[in-house]
Amino acid sequence: MNVRKCWNYAAAYEASSVHFTMANKTLIISAPGKVILHGEHAVVHGKVALAVSLNLKTYLRLQPCPDQKVQLNLPNINVHLSWKPAALQFLQSAIDVTDVLTPKAPNQEQMDQLRRFAGIPEGSTDTESLSILCFLYLYGAISTRNGQMPNMDILIWSELPIGAGLGSSAAYCVCLATALLSASGAITWPVPQEYNSTRWSEDELELINKWAFQGEKLIHGNPSGVDNAVGTWGGILRYHAGKIVPLYRVPTLRILLTNTKVPRSTKVLVAGVKDKLNKLPSIIKPVLDSIDAISCECERVLAAIASSNAIDENYSILEELIDINQHHLNVIGVGHSSLDRLCQITATYGLHSKLTGAGGGGCGLTLLRPDTSHSVVEAATQALKDFGYDCWETVIGGSGVSLHSPFSLPKDIFQILCNAKNCQ
Amino acid sequence: MNVRKCWNYAAAYEASSVHFTMANKTLIISAPGKVILHGEHAVVHGKVALAVSLNLKTYLRLQPCPDQKVQLNLPNINVHLSWKPAALQFLQSAIDVTDVLTPKAPNQEQMDQLRRFAGIPEGSTDTESLSILCFLYLYGAISTRNGQMPNMDILIWSELPIGAGLGSSAAYCVCLATALLSASGAITWPVPQEYNSTRWSEDELELINKWAFQGEKLIHGNPSGVDNAVGTWGGILRYHAGKIVPLYRVPTLRILLTNTKVPRSTKVLVAGVKDKLNKLPSIIKPVLDSIDAISCECERVLAAIASSNAIDENYSILEELIDINQHHLNVIGVGHSSLDRLCQITATYGLHSKLTGAGGGGCGLTLLRPDTSHSVVEAATQALKDFGYDCWETVIGGSGVSLHSPFSLPKDIFQILCNAKNCQ
Repeated sequence: MNVRKCWNYAAAYEASSVHFTMANKTLIISAPGKVILHGEHAVVHGKVALAVSLNLKTYLRLQPCPDQKVQLNLPNINVHLSWKPAALQFLQSAIDVTDVLTPKAPNQEQMDQLRRFAGIPEGSTDTESLSILCFLYLYGAISTRNGQMPNMDILIWSELPIGAGLGSSAAYCVCLATALLSASGAITWPVPQEYNSTRWSEDELELINKWAFQGEKLIHGNPSGVDNAVGTWGGILRYHAGKIVPLYRVPTLRILLTNTKVPRSTKVLVAGVKDKLNKLPSIIKPVLDSIDAISCECERVLAAIASSNAIDENYSILEELIDINQHHLNVIGVGHSSLDRLCQITATYGLHSKLTGAGGGGCGLTLLRPDTSHSVVEAATQALKDFGYDCWETVIGGSGVSLHSPFSLPKDIFQILCNAKNCQ
Repeated sequence: MNVRKCWNYAAAYEASSVHFTMANKTLIISAPGKVILHGEHAVVHGKVALAVSLNLKTYLRLQPCPDQKVQLNLPNINVHLSWKPAALQFLQSAIDVTDVLTPKAPNQEQMDQLRRFAGIPEGSTDTESLSILCFLYLYGAISTRNGQMPNMDILIWSELPIGAGLGSSAAYCVCLATALLSASGAITWPVPQEYNSTRWSEDELELINKWAFQGEKLIHGNPSGVDNAVGTWGGILRYHAGKIVPLYRVPTLRILLTNTKVPRSTKVLVAGVKDKLNKLPSIIKPVLDSIDAISCECERVLAAIASSNAIDENYSILEELIDINQHHLNVIGVGHSSLDRLCQITATYGLHSKLTGAGGGGCGLTLLRPDTSHSVVEAATQALKDFGYDCWETVIGGSGVSLHSPFSLPKDIFQILCNAKNCQ
C-alpha cells in the first residue's frame, strides 16, 4: 500500500493549501473499489449477484499545468509520463468522438494507433501498458471535444491492490472519466463544502459510468460493467442477466477484507465451474439456484437492517448466508486452502467469512457486527497477517465517485496527494 | 471393542471344535452394520439415500443348553441372564403370535408385561434394557410356536460401537431373528462348508428382515427399516420415500470408518434441518435436491465400477461426490468441528471423507481406492487415533446375514466365541 507518513500533518495542510483551492482548479476525486457480496460465478450462469462498494478507494488529483504539458503520474505502478499537447494532437482525428454524450470503445485500428504512439507492443496486457492506453483513449475521446489538447497534471493513487478482483481498474476508469468530463465542461464541477465531499447528478453519473465502461472494455475486453457501476454509484448493486440495478435503502457494513495473495486466473476458474456444471449438472445446478436464493435473501435482510429492524437477528442471517455460500463456492470448485484457513482463523474469533470474487485464492471478506469489539477485530487481523495475508478493516456499501475538498480527505491520502510533485 | 487375545489360536481351535459341530447344533450367525453412503437427512425430506453394509459385524452363537435353561449373554454390555423355561411360559399367551410368517410388533400391554417380568422400569431406554426386552419379545413370538419354551444358550458379541449410528441394534435384531427362526424350524438351517459361510433363500431373508424390523420398532419406536434391511441383505440399498430397493451389481469399497466419539442427538439434528428448511426454504431446498442427485449419480458410478469400467475416473467421481455432500451436510447444519478435522486430516493424505449418519459428531467415512497403499492408510489411521478418534480400516458393500462354519470366522471373533463360557 506504500502509504508515506507525514508526521507534520498540520504544517503540511498549511503549506499545501495553495494547491488545493478551487481558484487553482484543483480537482480531487475518489472512486471506491468493489467486492462481490454474493453471487460470484453463479452470475455467469444467469443468477443474481450483489456487488457492493468497498471503502478502499482510488484517488485522482487534477491540476492545470502552467507549462504546456499533459502529465500522467501513477505512483502505485511507477508510471510518470509527460507529453507536449501538440504530440497528442493526433488523438483528435484518430479517436474521432463527435459526441461526448455517446461514449464508445476504441476499435482495433484506434488501439493500434494508441499503442504505436505509446511504444507499447501488441499483446501487452501489463497494468502499466493498459493504464496508459486507457488514459490516452479517454483523454482523446473526452478532452479534445473543444478542438484543443488541454494541458493538465493528473495524479492517480489507489488504496486498492491491483489484480485482486477488487475493481481497481474500474475505480481508475471512473476517476479518469469523471475528471476529464468535469475538466472539459461536459459535466459540472461541483464545489464541495470545506470539510465535505459532493457528488454529481444522476444524468452526470450515467455519463461518467458509460465512459468508465469504455475504459474497462479497453482494459478487460468484455467486462460485465458491474465494477464501473459500483465505482460510480457506490452502495449495493443487483446484477442479473446483464441488468444492473442499484438497491435502495442499504446499510453500510463493517468488514475485514483479506487478500490471501494467492494468485489465480479468473478465466481458468470460470471455465472450471462450467466444466463441473457440464459433468454433474443435476448436482451443480441446484447449488447455483441456492446461491441465487442467497443473493435474494441477502437483499431482503439488508433492507431490514437499513430500516433498523431486528438488527441482531438479521446479522445472524447474514452470517449464515456467508457460511452457506462459502460451502457452495467450494462445491463449485473455486475454493482454496488459503481461503479455508481464512475462514477457520476468523471462526475462532466468532466471525464469518467467504471468498469474494473469483476465488481460488484472491480475496475474502469477513463480516463484522456493529458491536464487534475493536480488540476482536485487532486480534483477528493480526492472526491473518501472521499467515502472510494482507488485511484491512473497512466498510462496504458507501458512496460512489465523489469530489473532495482537501480537508475531507483521510489524513494519509491527504499526505500522498499533497506531497506529490506538482506539474514540472 | 474389548477383543480378548487368544495366543494359542491353533490349540483353541482344537479344544473348542466340540462346541462348533453341527451335531451339537451350534449355530454361528453374523449380521453387518450399516453406514449411509449418501442421503442422510435428505431422506427425511423425500430424497434418495444409499445405505450400505459395513464389515463391522455382530456375531451370535446359539447352542442348546443341556440344563433346562434359556441364557442370554451380551458381553459388550455386560448382560448375562438365565431363565428357567417355565418362567418364560407366560410369553406364549402374552405375545400370542399365531403365525410366525406374519410378524408383528408388541403392543403397549405386551411391552408392559415384558417390562414387569424383566424388572425394567417404564421409560427405560438404556441399551441393556432394550436388548433384554427385544430378546424376550422375539423369543416369545418366534420360539414358542411349537408350544414349547426351548432351552438355548445365546451369546451375542459385536464389533460395532453402540449408539454410533452404525446399525448395531439392527444387526442385533437380525442375528436374533435369524437364530430363533432357524432354531424353531421356521427357516432352514443351512450347512456351511468347512471354511465358508452360507446364506438363506430370498423368502427366508424376507422373513428374517420382517422380524428384525419388529425388534427395531421395539427399540427405536419408528425406525425406517433401512438398518435391518442392510443387516439382512447386505450390499447397497436405495431408500426413497419409504421404499427400500437393493442395488444389483455393486462393488465392495475399502473405507476408513472413524468414530469421533462426539455424542449427538439424532432427533435434535433432524429437527435442526427442518428448522433451517423452514427458515430459508429457497436456499436449503435446492441443497436437498443436490444431495438427491448425488445419491443417484453415486448409484450410477458404483454400477460402472462393478462392471470394471474406467475405475480410476469413477473413483475420482466418488471422491468428488463425498466432498460435495460433506459441504451440503454442513450447509444444512449437521456438521461439527470434529468432522471438519476428520476431513482435514484425511485430506492431507489425499483421502476424501464425509460424515455418515446423523452428523453433529458421530462417525465419518473415508474412501480408500483399491490401490491406496497400506502405508498411507496406516499413517492416516494413526493421525486420526492421535486425535482420540476410533478408526477402523474396513469394507462396505459386503454380504448380509450369514451362517458361519467356525473356521470361516475371523481369528479374533473365533477367539471370543470359543472362549466364552458354555451353558452353565
